[in-house]
Amino acid sequence: MADATQPMFKRLALIGIGLIGSSISHAARRHGGLVGEITGSSATEKTRETALRLGLVDKAFATAAEAVEGADLVIVCTPVGVCGRIAEQIGPRLAAGAIVSDVGSVKSAIVADMAPHLPASVHFVPAHPIAGTEYSGPEAGFSSLFDGRWTILTPPEGAEGEATARLRAFWEGLGSRVEVMTPEHHDLVLAITSHLPHLIAYNIVNTAEHLKRVTDSEVIQFSAGGFRDFTRIAASDPTMWRDIFLNNKDAVLHMLGRFGEDLAVMEQAIRSGDGDTLFRLFAEARAVRRGIVEAGQDTAKPDFGRGPGTGAS
Amino acid sequence: MADATQPMFKRLALIGIGLIGSSISHAARRHGGLVGEITGSSATEKTRETALRLGLVDKAFATAAEAVEGADLVIVCTPVGVCGRIAEQIGPRLAAGAIVSDVGSVKSAIVADMAPHLPASVHFVPAHPIAGTEYSGPEAGFSSLFDGRWTILTPPEGAEGEATARLRAFWEGLGSRVEVMTPEHHDLVLAITSHLPHLIAYNIVNTAEHLKRVTDSEVIQFSAGGFRDFTRIAASDPTMWRDIFLNNKDAVLHMLGRFGEDLAVMEQAIRSGDGDTLFRLFAEARAVRRGIVEAGQDTAKPDFGRGPGTGAS
Repeated sequence: MADATQPMFKRLALIGIGLIGSSISHAARRHGGLVGEITGSSATEKTRETALRLGLVDKAFATAAEAVEGADLVIVCTPVGVCGRIAEQIGPRLAAGAIVSDVGSVKSAIVADMAPHLPASVHFVPAHPIAGTEYSGPEAGFSSLFDGRWTILTPPEGAEGEATARLRAFWEGLGSRVEVMTPEHHDLVLAITSHLPHLIAYNIVNTAEHLKRVTDSEVIQFSAGGFRDFTRIAASDPTMWRDIFLNNKDAVLHMLGRFGEDLAVMEQAIRSGDGDTLFRLFAEARAVRRGIVEAGQDTAKPDFGRGPGTGAS
Repeated sequence: MADATQPMFKRLALIGIGLIGSSISHAARRHGGLVGEITGSSATEKTRETALRLGLVDKAFATAAEAVEGADLVIVCTPVGVCGRIAEQIGPRLAAGAIVSDVGSVKSAIVADMAPHLPASVHFVPAHPIAGTEYSGPEAGFSSLFDGRWTILTPPEGAEGEATARLRAFWEGLGSRVEVMTPEHHDLVLAITSHLPHLIAYNIVNTAEHLKRVTDSEVIQFSAGGFRDFTRIAASDPTMWRDIFLNNKDAVLHMLGRFGEDLAVMEQAIRSGDGDTLFRLFAEARAVRRGIVEAGQDTAKPDFGRGPGTGAS
């Protein structure tokens, strides 16, 4: 396929240089043979300066349209809500034969928003790397973010197989494992594995803040009993998550309904003092953890291995 | 106060030798001056054998009544639901002047269950170290479990101040920080910082399992998007947690009601596409995380510092 002396892609354009964009750059540079030049765009001057200073991009542009000129791989790494507008801006400037992709956490809405603006001469293969941290911005990225994690590709029906295969090879080169599914199924899977957990985490943190009889400082002081785990997820970027919930509404509301039904059963068991039901529900939940550790998707170390005294003190 | 050549307590009796009991032993041995002899009891022969083999106790007994003979500090480290029965068994065998304590995650119910069975000649000072992992059993303990964490003491009204001061010094010797409050306030604080988070985590894991359109293996495979954090908490001991919910019913149901009200607001915002409300709610939640890290109650490292490829693969 590829000439051994040539990189897989001559020019990669990163539209948006935050946690994911900067991590793609780090991981691509680590590999060596994946990309030649990397261009990037950000509307924020400080982000462009940081990206150049850290060597994340060879050239930084204020507009997406400039950054995609001559690129054979374009990855839109912005919040989901602006992907449609980006597609509109870059559509006329894309090189024929280029692969256009993204990293958004929803897929049906992205396909609906972006596809109409992209010329027939390019290959549109949406993607979603299931990796991240609670930090954001160009300085948050690191080269091993995708190692062992999964990236889901959702090529629209009739998408050319070779473009999908090339994008798969690219993500595998970044350290990721790759799965292909429909945008609709992706949105359902992510609604339960990612979107609902984030919604619940945001909500419980706010519930704690709204209490009058327990102070904020008590909530913080005694958070090691479980609450602190939720606050990590709830520290994620609010703009990104607003867009996810606005763009995966049906699947999230469906999962939220199921969650509420299950919670009503637990509430009733507590109210009526039904210890057998509680024990059964808790014991069932335990087995799932083992599967995740065995699948290499989390550490087996107690307490995530974070150990004592790991905070600022 | 204490003679420098004498340990703070001559004989510590651990009733129950699981994660917390074994960690108390490790931490007490690390300190050196805290305890002389350590006795322990477990109804399970294998636990007694393990405790002796690991040097967690000098003597292991099948009954609590035997283990407390001659002990000047007795700590009940069993699930909350059996503390009353333990108190009944040990009451007649306790040495005069002994301090009797526990490590239970609820306090009002423990006071109600245990106090009636304890003779006036002992000092009853309930305690709750807010520390733990998702693992259980005598092999799960380690000496640094309590370092930098908080232990709450809830002496009943009129409890002798010196006994509380001695127990405080003991927990500080184990590495913990110590706070004193009423049993009722403890139960309210823990309902939001620990009990509700566990209930929510157990529930979301079960919701994921009950789905038909998303398979169990997909839930596991793509869990790095947030779900896996909940499974760690939901891997906690089901017996312990059943007892907690049965014994802190009112506070948990109160917090669950508040949580439901807040969740209804988020659900409505998603349904009506109200991005401003979502953004505001998410941004508010972010600040709490910073407070927890600054208070030394969690790591600032991205993703708890667990890094990539930390699983079994």
